Amino acid sequence: MNSNREQAVFEAGIKLGALYHQWVGTPISKRSAVSVEAAIEKAVILQPFVEEITVHLNRDLMTENVFGYSELSGLMFEVEIITRVGFAYCRARLGPSTGYPLMQIEECHEVAPVSDH
Amino acid sequence: MNSNREQAVFEAGIKLGALYHQWVGTPISKRSAVSVEAAIEKAVILQPFVEEITVHLNRDLMTENVFGYSELSGLMFEVEIITRVGFAYCRARLGPSTGYPLMQIEECHEVAPVSDH
Amino acid sequence: MNSNREQAVFEAGIKLGALYHQWVGTPISKRSAVSVEAAIEKAVILQPFVEEITVHLNRDLMTENVFGYSELSGLMFEVEIITRVGFAYCRARLGPSTGYPLMQIEECHEVAPVSDH
Amino acid sequence: MNSNREQAVFEAGIKLGALYHQWVGTPISKRSAVSVEAAIEKAVILQPFVEEITVHLNRDLMTENVFGYSELSGLMFEVEIITRVGFAYCRARLGPSTGYPLMQIEECHEVAPVSDH
Repeated sequence: MNSNREQAVFEAGIKLGALYHQWVGTPISKRSAVSVEAAIEKAVILQPFVEEITVHLNRDLMTENVFGYSELSGLMFEVEIITRVGFAYCRARLGPSTGYPLMQIEECHEVAPVSDH
Repeated sequence: MNSNREQAVFEAGIKLGALYHQWVGTPISKRSAVSVEAAIEKAVILQPFVEEITVHLNRDLMTENVFGYSELSGLMFEVEIITRVGFAYCRARLGPSTGYPLMQIEECHEVAPVSDH
Repeated sequence: MNSNREQAVFEAGIKLGALYHQWVGTPISKRSAVSVEAAIEKAVILQPFVEEITVHLNRDLMTENVFGYSELSGLMFEVEIITRVGFAYCRARLGPSTGYPLMQIEECHEVAPVSDH
Repeated sequence: MNSNREQAVFEAGIKLGALYHQWVGTPISKRSAVSVEAAIEKAVILQPFVEEITVHLNRDLMTENVFGYSELSGLMFEVEIITRVGFAYCRARLGPSTGYPLMQIEECHEVAPVSDH
């Protein structure tokens, strides 16, 4: 059997992998970025075991092509997610690290259920 | 040489094909649909030759899975786009037709430039 | 009414926009590129009005990240497609042009049906 | 610090979430399915920590639309992946469960390094 803690970790991985490949390639600009951030957050929070999700897209990387816009690329993502399974929590992130859009577990906690006695 | 009118038609096709495959599969619900509609519109309007874009996603098809949400599918799209190249306009749409998410040219117009004399 | 020729142009645009946003972001390397090319070609040829499709992905742009692979990006695509509606043909392409993955109509032909007399 | 075992679980989640959203929506038929399976496997195996990946797409669900093809949907996926971090292994799968494309940890093992004494 897998523990709640391991499942919380698994769910965090699923959600980060999913959002990356769902949205990468979206046409984007500094002005439209906020609407893409909101849409991603609202899509991810629908999924099971997601407690919190914050998405920030790095405007500094949104250099304009010849037609004046950019395309959402992996290094633009700065995402933090908290998943929960039972009393176990996992906080993970997606962000640039040595030129790679790295997904990492930040911390996990398992909260002991409070006894009546 | 291709005419402006033909290029306006081509650009409308590109944008409809692009948005369909960029966004299909997105986790969605009746409550979050409006944010996805806004994000799609704001992404498409960035692209060259797009004059207008309206996106409506059919809530009636957003039946909930066991985890209480749905996934954006092709038949949910009701999209109208107007592209312009020079003085030529193309209006096209994406919407369900006999169970298929059909993309169609609605009408094209080429406006004669006004002469000074 | 739109002519066959205009619809062939429209269909070419749809397919190019669709394949771009379906596959951009796919993990790729110089060794795996051939299987992605084949999968794209076999997916596009299924769609209505497609007569021919050739996909070449530029290996020179597949620079390895810290984990030794790359990601399919817009500028890697070199695609040629031929669509047909009735007796009208359209040949279009997707390829890099001044740093942008440009989609262009190459040529259109309408073949006169052969008369009996 | 997270254990190798937890990171192996995390990586399995990432890869399953990623492949789902990268490939869902692809035009597909019973004849072309094998090329899509191969392309997915070859894309996933490139990514860090992946030891094995097998992808089977359920042909029975590939019902033809009016144009004679289908679209890769979540319930078609039957995927098994093995990830490894250090001496820890995780086997996970994606497959249909009560009408939902469920991702699950199957088993994890941590192999004790062999001592010299």
